[in-house]
Amino acid sequence: MKLAENLRIIDGWSIQEDHFREEHLITNGSNFMTGNGYLGYRGTFAEWRAPQYTGCFVSDTYDKADDTWEELCNAPNGLYGAFSADGQPLAVLNGTAMGYHRSLWYRYGLQSRSITLRTPSKAHVTLTEERFASYASQHLLPARYRIESDRPAGVELTWGIDGEVWDLNGTHLGRHKARSEGENLISVTARTVTSKLTLAVASGLRVTSAETRAETARVGSRLRRSRAAVASADNKCIFGKLKFTVEPERPAVVEQYMAVYSSNDLHDPRAAAISAVSTAQEHGYDRLWREHRRVWDAVWQDCDIEIEGDLKAQALLRFNMYHNIIATPAHTDHLPLGARGLSCQAYQGAAFWDQEIYNLPMYLYTRPQIARNLLVYRHRTLDGAREKARKLGYEGAFYAWVSGRTGEEICPSYFFTDVLTGRRIRNHFNDWQIHISPDIAYTVRRYFEVTGDLEFMLDHGAEILLEVARFLLSRVCYKPRKDRYELIRLLGPDEYHENVDNNFFTALQTQFALQSAAWAVDLLAELAPERQRELTERLGFSTEDYKQCREVAAKLFLQPADSDTGLIEQFDGYFELEDTRPRVLKERLLDPGEYWGWPNGVAVETQVLKQADVLQSIVLHRRCFTGKQMRANYQYYEPRTQHGSSLSPSVHATVAAWIGRHEAAYDYFTRATSIDLLNINKAVSGGTFIGGIHTAACGAAWQIVVHGFLGMQFCDDVLEFCPRPPTWWKRIAFPLTVRGLRLQVRLELDELRRLTVRADPGGVGELTVRCGEQERTVRPGSTAELSARG
Amino acid sequence: MKLAENLRIIDGWSIQEDHFREEHLITNGSNFMTGNGYLGYRGTFAEWRAPQYTGCFVSDTYDKADDTWEELCNAPNGLYGAFSADGQPLAVLNGTAMGYHRSLWYRYGLQSRSITLRTPSKAHVTLTEERFASYASQHLLPARYRIESDRPAGVELTWGIDGEVWDLNGTHLGRHKARSEGENLISVTARTVTSKLTLAVASGLRVTSAETRAETARVGSRLRRSRAAVASADNKCIFGKLKFTVEPERPAVVEQYMAVYSSNDLHDPRAAAISAVSTAQEHGYDRLWREHRRVWDAVWQDCDIEIEGDLKAQALLRFNMYHNIIATPAHTDHLPLGARGLSCQAYQGAAFWDQEIYNLPMYLYTRPQIARNLLVYRHRTLDGAREKARKLGYEGAFYAWVSGRTGEEICPSYFFTDVLTGRRIRNHFNDWQIHISPDIAYTVRRYFEVTGDLEFMLDHGAEILLEVARFLLSRVCYKPRKDRYELIRLLGPDEYHENVDNNFFTALQTQFALQSAAWAVDLLAELAPERQRELTERLGFSTEDYKQCREVAAKLFLQPADSDTGLIEQFDGYFELEDTRPRVLKERLLDPGEYWGWPNGVAVETQVLKQADVLQSIVLHRRCFTGKQMRANYQYYEPRTQHGSSLSPSVHATVAAWIGRHEAAYDYFTRATSIDLLNINKAVSGGTFIGGIHTAACGAAWQIVVHGFLGMQFCDDVLEFCPRPPTWWKRIAFPLTVRGLRLQVRLELDELRRLTVRADPGGVGELTVRCGEQERTVRPGSTAELSARG
Repeated sequence: MKLAENLRIIDGWSIQEDHFREEHLITNGSNFMTGNGYLGYRGTFAEWRAPQYTGCFVSDTYDKADDTWEELCNAPNGLYGAFSADGQPLAVLNGTAMGYHRSLWYRYGLQSRSITLRTPSKAHVTLTEERFASYASQHLLPARYRIESDRPAGVELTWGIDGEVWDLNGTHLGRHKARSEGENLISVTARTVTSKLTLAVASGLRVTSAETRAETARVGSRLRRSRAAVASADNKCIFGKLKFTVEPERPAVVEQYMAVYSSNDLHDPRAAAISAVSTAQEHGYDRLWREHRRVWDAVWQDCDIEIEGDLKAQALLRFNMYHNIIATPAHTDHLPLGARGLSCQAYQGAAFWDQEIYNLPMYLYTRPQIARNLLVYRHRTLDGAREKARKLGYEGAFYAWVSGRTGEEICPSYFFTDVLTGRRIRNHFNDWQIHISPDIAYTVRRYFEVTGDLEFMLDHGAEILLEVARFLLSRVCYKPRKDRYELIRLLGPDEYHENVDNNFFTALQTQFALQSAAWAVDLLAELAPERQRELTERLGFSTEDYKQCREVAAKLFLQPADSDTGLIEQFDGYFELEDTRPRVLKERLLDPGEYWGWPNGVAVETQVLKQADVLQSIVLHRRCFTGKQMRANYQYYEPRTQHGSSLSPSVHATVAAWIGRHEAAYDYFTRATSIDLLNINKAVSGGTFIGGIHTAACGAAWQIVVHGFLGMQFCDDVLEFCPRPPTWWKRIAFPLTVRGLRLQVRLELDELRRLTVRADPGGVGELTVRCGEQERTVRPGSTAELSARG
Repeated sequence: MKLAENLRIIDGWSIQEDHFREEHLITNGSNFMTGNGYLGYRGTFAEWRAPQYTGCFVSDTYDKADDTWEELCNAPNGLYGAFSADGQPLAVLNGTAMGYHRSLWYRYGLQSRSITLRTPSKAHVTLTEERFASYASQHLLPARYRIESDRPAGVELTWGIDGEVWDLNGTHLGRHKARSEGENLISVTARTVTSKLTLAVASGLRVTSAETRAETARVGSRLRRSRAAVASADNKCIFGKLKFTVEPERPAVVEQYMAVYSSNDLHDPRAAAISAVSTAQEHGYDRLWREHRRVWDAVWQDCDIEIEGDLKAQALLRFNMYHNIIATPAHTDHLPLGARGLSCQAYQGAAFWDQEIYNLPMYLYTRPQIARNLLVYRHRTLDGAREKARKLGYEGAFYAWVSGRTGEEICPSYFFTDVLTGRRIRNHFNDWQIHISPDIAYTVRRYFEVTGDLEFMLDHGAEILLEVARFLLSRVCYKPRKDRYELIRLLGPDEYHENVDNNFFTALQTQFALQSAAWAVDLLAELAPERQRELTERLGFSTEDYKQCREVAAKLFLQPADSDTGLIEQFDGYFELEDTRPRVLKERLLDPGEYWGWPNGVAVETQVLKQADVLQSIVLHRRCFTGKQMRANYQYYEPRTQHGSSLSPSVHATVAAWIGRHEAAYDYFTRATSIDLLNINKAVSGGTFIGGIHTAACGAAWQIVVHGFLGMQFCDDVLEFCPRPPTWWKRIAFPLTVRGLRLQVRLELDELRRLTVRADPGGVGELTVRCGEQERTVRPGSTAELSARG
């Protein structure tokens, strides 16, 4: 089925691009990317270079080259390969291609492209390339080219490492050194400007004369000449040439391997890269591919959601889950999950609140070890958060709005430029958007609830909770005449309204975080009193602090729900702002590129929202709201929301599902899961690349289905479902891991609407499953059946 | 002596303009104005009309015609009079004048102009006009014209009421009715748009045939024809004509009277205006002039400062005092003193904090009844202040930033327009500039200290103090982790830095206001316990409130003076802002008309100030600061201050005098007192009139001399002097009224530097006078002599 003019879905596991559109060059470079959480390689073509936004972004390579933006490096491209046949370049951009196809098989993260051209000697030559970022060997990117021709054709391949990369903010790599490391094995090393890292890329061809099969011939069998690679004068690039002939019915196959290491990975990244490529050359593509697939099979076994009856939803869902997965540094507990993953340098490859609230929940219920890793990362970055708090005059841990490797704030104070005046805008993401800290505390508590991982609490979680609480205690104000605590000068998730007071979302999260700190002290006191004493003593968290957590949580002002309507004001005075709609504001723009928010954007003095904080609150604290309140707030805020954030549609989808607005829920689900695929926004604005994968929306896809359509929540030791899926869906099945029990959930949407929850054998403990009024207990090996009717 | 290219001083009581400059049309229309606190009449010429910014602004005539700006009305001009001789207009704007002179004799508020032209028949004709706003009869403006010629000349006068006035924001007058009310007596009445007031103007000529003197002839003696006045079609204007001949050596004299009343003055303003003009016609100009001068003589007797040895300083000082006086509605206790007085509609004819801090102190020490009137006005407007507090979620009295008749906030939320985008700017004068309330409290307390007026405290002052305190208690925040109260989100007098915390000036004033409320409760409890009970009960001001005043005042955070340097930070984080200078910022402007402040002006993120709040604090609370602190803060803030406010130079002059920087003090004195006279700022910006008299600077002139150069302060019942006048001054002499004693202060600046303080007979009580280490007691009729050396 067609997704867009040039995008098709043919199964639930891939997307296909039928013809090339230059205007989608950037967005589809992101959509079709491959990656493995260590690196991300854009879905570009072997012959492309910087102007086509080729890129291989490597985690843990932060550098600041322009005094403002600290971001990840774009590594020299070790998968450069330009083919020509009979002197005719096999390239897509020159407009002579007769056939074209690009696809991403996201089941295994395999990107491929084929192109057919007619050579001057009238041969029809087809080049097919495919590559993947290996999950079995994360520094490695194997690629394979296959060339077919209906007449004998002379093929030339210029291959090597292209070090002329593009950077968003400043040039990060310098002091390049390009080397020939042996036959068909080359390397480029470079140093980052301020962080002084060494980045090493190796590239190698695999050209064996031995291997032949019936239908294809390895290039070696027809090899005519392979010239030694030559480095460019500036040492950024090194290219070799390979010439051979392709005969009809005997496709030629060439393999190329790229490996990347940085000095943050190990002491000698160059040696490691060379070794990785050598090994790959030895093992060959097929073996690497098998090893890689094994990892992906295990991943999907843990988290895949099967939807029967809706191919589009199935494909969109998995596409988004795929991008959430490849953005996640699952292999380590010291790296952030970037807001654009590893698809580009935008958003600095850094963690925002998105990490905990959007990306992590899927892992929490499917691969809890990864959720744990991400939270341990937050624990490792506590010192950065403490430093930020201290600098701003607070105590405890004020987490970075934009958190790189160390947790220090890398969000510049001047994030945007005013397109009308050319002046920089002082955005207050880094100092006023305080909800990041309680958001992390929220997730720590949820993590423990779902996993019961006491060791995590002892080693990491409790410390986060206490330090966040201390920050919040130093941030609140007490209003003596009202005998209540307030939160002043905030920026909520709705970033169009800066400098507001008592933002409902921030207050609710703050209250929960303060309660959670006190809860953690109680928990430790009961289960590990020695550790509790040690921790509170080390942190200087006194009994008085504990009491203040309770007191402030009890007296913190939360905007009340109107007793008649159930409506909740997003912040003090919101209802007094001009009540208008996003489309009206659009007409007020003097320049389409204007920022709508602070300090003087078109939305600031109006009720128009970037995203709806009250709805976001409902999604995170469903228990705290009545159905009436959910309906009232959805009804009020929905038409006033501009969805200027990619985080917004998923929240609407979930709340819409909960209040039974099926159509809206499905529309918002589609919108949330198509943000990148159907991206009609500009990918470059004012000369700045703003493309890349909206990772948070990808993470939210799982949540819309499981939390939203299935109504799943795990609360008070009960796993509850309240299914309201689209009416045409036939079956949904997915695994969950809760409290160490591995469950297979299946909802049959026939007349019986049977919900079964089967626990795999081998776990321990038991779990109560609820659906409506019914409750069942599941134990390892047992199955609970419930009716989801009514 | 020359003050400017076309301005001269010939004595200490007047300014002279030698030739007409069209570019000074607006500013000198203000500088040469006459007025009497009820109305202000711009220093324009009889034949001028709206394009020349003629204007008669009438107090207590608020109207809002454009939905935004509530302002005073410009009355129809009842002193319109256009002369021609032999068909040649006697006018200044046509460029044919041979002689020209304009002067203001500010001793009596007499504006005059003379012009000489050569007629087609070669006669040299001189027209001299003079007028004054009567202080004896405040609705009345008498004018007199004198025409001389060296040959017989036929003169024609078109006189009457010109109702085609200009308005700043919307057209305020409608439903005009022009009437002929008798021989040489006409009227125009009109209604205001939203306030529905009736405004009536009458105008009359005095043309008597009886009066003749040797050297002049009343017009009547040569009267040829006086035509009945004819109203214009739209009823806005009504003009009559008068023709006569002037003979050599026999100047002709015509008198014209204008009277204005509004229905806020009395029931039938038209009848009153007609009656006033009739009476004036009967009494004649000379008698009216005598009666008027008597009032002025009394005024100057109470407040004049004689400076010997510096004609310029003398003239500038009195010029400013004059403008402070005519801006003051001394006749009543229900009207505000406008920030531009009655010189135009700019600043809405309304009171700002300027009234208490800049205009009032001169009265407090010279004509305390007027200071009392202004404070009673604040008491009368308490309900407006209460309503403002309530609307913004506070208790007590939050005084209007821009206070008209009722005390409701008439400061629009959108004060400025961004010249770069054309978008309106949300200025937070009305909601964040809270120091207005403690500023009023400060002045109430100072008023009582200087006057000992217990009755005022019982009837007015205490209520203001308690209500202001209650507002402040509801405004402060308690920070539990720091155990202190803070003031968050402020706009201090330095309006370039909005949204700041713990602005030093605001905090110091707040602390003083809270202390003063508790002090007032104690005072009343001691001196009038019955009234104290009645008041606190009526206001619901509890013992708990009293305790909170003490507690918050004790724990309110004040930026500390650096123990090494004595420097005080203006607000949290000020020292971390970019440290640059005003001239640097000027270069950053994209448009010279840009507002430098909030939200994104060039000064916002820098240390450049509009005015220096710490220096302002020193001026108001001299006792709280050491000499070292004064020096350190002057030295730091002075080069960073742009003086974007007319309030700024006087503060610098005073502090500079106190720390012995004589030259700087004199320079700032000259600057403060020349703001209007040497005004080189634009008087019209973006088509909007922003001219007018900077009344606060006028009020401050007295303070610079008495508080600054003389170092006078009245504290703890001691009248202290610490004289540091300019070295070339020979003598300063002025009256003061303190605690009911009327004092004549005289400082001889010879070698002995004798300071004498003589108390007039007739007062009661005694006073300690201090100068350096010496103390003397003065009693009614006695004189204290002190040495001001060293």
